[in-house]
Amino acid sequence: MRRYAILAPGQFADNAKTAHGVIRYSSDETVAVVDPSCAGRTVRDVLPYLDSSAPVVASVADALRYEPTALLIGTAPKGGKLPPEWRAEILAAIANGLEIVSGLHDMLGADPEFAAAALQQNVAIWDVREPPDVPLFSGAAYDVQAPIVLAVGNDCAVGKMTVMLEFARAARNAGANAEFVPTGQTGIMIAGWGIAVDRVISDFATGACEQLVLEAARRNPEYVLVEGQGAINHPAYAPVTLALLFGCAPDALLLVADVRRTSMDTYGTPMLSYSQLVAIHEELCATVKPARVVGIALNTFGLDEGAAAAEIARARAETSLPADDVVRNGAGDLWNAIAPKLVKRYPLAAKVVA
Amino acid sequence: MRRYAILAPGQFADNAKTAHGVIRYSSDETVAVVDPSCAGRTVRDVLPYLDSSAPVVASVADALRYEPTALLIGTAPKGGKLPPEWRAEILAAIANGLEIVSGLHDMLGADPEFAAAALQQNVAIWDVREPPDVPLFSGAAYDVQAPIVLAVGNDCAVGKMTVMLEFARAARNAGANAEFVPTGQTGIMIAGWGIAVDRVISDFATGACEQLVLEAARRNPEYVLVEGQGAINHPAYAPVTLALLFGCAPDALLLVADVRRTSMDTYGTPMLSYSQLVAIHEELCATVKPARVVGIALNTFGLDEGAAAAEIARARAETSLPADDVVRNGAGDLWNAIAPKLVKRYPLAAKVVA
Repeated sequence: MRRYAILAPGQFADNAKTAHGVIRYSSDETVAVVDPSCAGRTVRDVLPYLDSSAPVVASVADALRYEPTALLIGTAPKGGKLPPEWRAEILAAIANGLEIVSGLHDMLGADPEFAAAALQQNVAIWDVREPPDVPLFSGAAYDVQAPIVLAVGNDCAVGKMTVMLEFARAARNAGANAEFVPTGQTGIMIAGWGIAVDRVISDFATGACEQLVLEAARRNPEYVLVEGQGAINHPAYAPVTLALLFGCAPDALLLVADVRRTSMDTYGTPMLSYSQLVAIHEELCATVKPARVVGIALNTFGLDEGAAAAEIARARAETSLPADDVVRNGAGDLWNAIAPKLVKRYPLAAKVVA
Repeated sequence: MRRYAILAPGQFADNAKTAHGVIRYSSDETVAVVDPSCAGRTVRDVLPYLDSSAPVVASVADALRYEPTALLIGTAPKGGKLPPEWRAEILAAIANGLEIVSGLHDMLGADPEFAAAALQQNVAIWDVREPPDVPLFSGAAYDVQAPIVLAVGNDCAVGKMTVMLEFARAARNAGANAEFVPTGQTGIMIAGWGIAVDRVISDFATGACEQLVLEAARRNPEYVLVEGQGAINHPAYAPVTLALLFGCAPDALLLVADVRRTSMDTYGTPMLSYSQLVAIHEELCATVKPARVVGIALNTFGLDEGAAAAEIARARAETSLPADDVVRNGAGDLWNAIAPKLVKRYPLAAKVVA
């Protein structure tokens, strides 16, 4: 078990989804957050939905009194580069014997200065996004016995990981054994295993997805719940989404949508409607292994109760699918509505040769 | 200018598309092919459509009398691994001062034994598939002034590169300046520049495609002709196809189809019809930047004249698009049919923020 100090200077409140996910879902404890812009408050003061009394402090030096064992990089900037002004804080953490946990594309363990300091202090650097060597996709994923459910979304950072973690918990509450499959850095930090698919060489991305569902299957779950990535119409990240859609061999899809987005990420591409999203994912799956969208998890954060209920009703009416906000209303109802629809489907392939 | 000996032991006749592409289209000369299984014949004897009198020999040692300056790895095996039994021939080439040119995923320049030998002999190793560092996709590709045409296909290895090279030549013959954009190892060997998109880290694959069309645009062409990769319904490689479809920001698509395939690669997935292929590519493009399929280049290799003509007529009737086999019948007619349709189209994005 780690005790985390989380580094997110200037960004904890608004732009630190890795920090928020780890504080909310990890079994590792967060003992302090480093962000001078809100130092002196608690996590709960800054973000009431994160039910934690951990203090926010101004520096790694100030965090040491809370006895962290690791410093976690709490943000996921575009392109995954380390802000240069964070180097001194990371070096301070290493100098004080803290393990470094990072989900950046920049591999901190390969940085000469960090590597030398870590060696000297006998400190580990866990670059969560560093992928293992994986084989090409073989089709072995088609033989997984448990139904595989993949989250797909209307954009990046809309709550696909959160929804699948809530479903895993709802399944456990209903007496079922559901395995959460992490496919990105925050999910890996929370679950302690997984592959950051966006970091895998393109030719091997479907193979990485296949290895993930095979690993989950070895734990003999009743359901495999795969965290999604990106969006199928995202101008930059859609290839990662398609790697999951084919490589994980899903039997069912769960659509996750942030209802307040009006355009895609920073690219200005218009959002697709719920029914357009259902159609394009099902059409792509129909070419390889059929899968249907079985439900819609809406992220209505920021709407009042009435507006949220109206949007949930609109999604149901537009698609004839079960829909709910699993954070606002709990995941039990939506899980119970979709669970009976989670049955195995089979690939179009007459044969699969690795 | 290089003088190539091409290494393809046991595979030159049937399974060496890199060798065939380089012999056919590169301005570098192939002086010998190393394949003991057909040694003593010429390239033309083995494959009449490759109009070359270069000898096929049994070993690198036998090739030396033809004074090669480089050894090119002539195959593109699944997963890009070096067959271990080829090591001795590569070492023999290095020992004799030959440059090594390889499109494998295995990076020969990072292999300790090859690297040491190359250093000792002052020989270069060009790992064609090693990608440069590229930025994330920014949307800059949307500003390219020349119409961008992307080849899409009904499977891997159906002739997408060949068709675009033939179109570049047909355009030149028609007095137009068309820039061929290599996106895979063979194309890079032929054109001397490019990025193997399948080797790029998934998050950056669309960015790599964008950099390629920006590089082509700096040469002020009237048309940008992008080599395609994989297939949108390929169980393993579709993410690479989608990276090209979004990252290259094509204004028009050219469908390339091998008419004799009955299932996808080695995976057994059924082929899509011409009209299904047109529809799924256009639907995906419609979500980001609209593009239409403007023509169909059929690969009718192995059919007799009558059967080929019948299939070309069937493709035209099914899709109402111009269709032809540009290898069998020359590329001029199809190029002349599609060129007037190559006009700029614009992204749905209201704004693009890098």
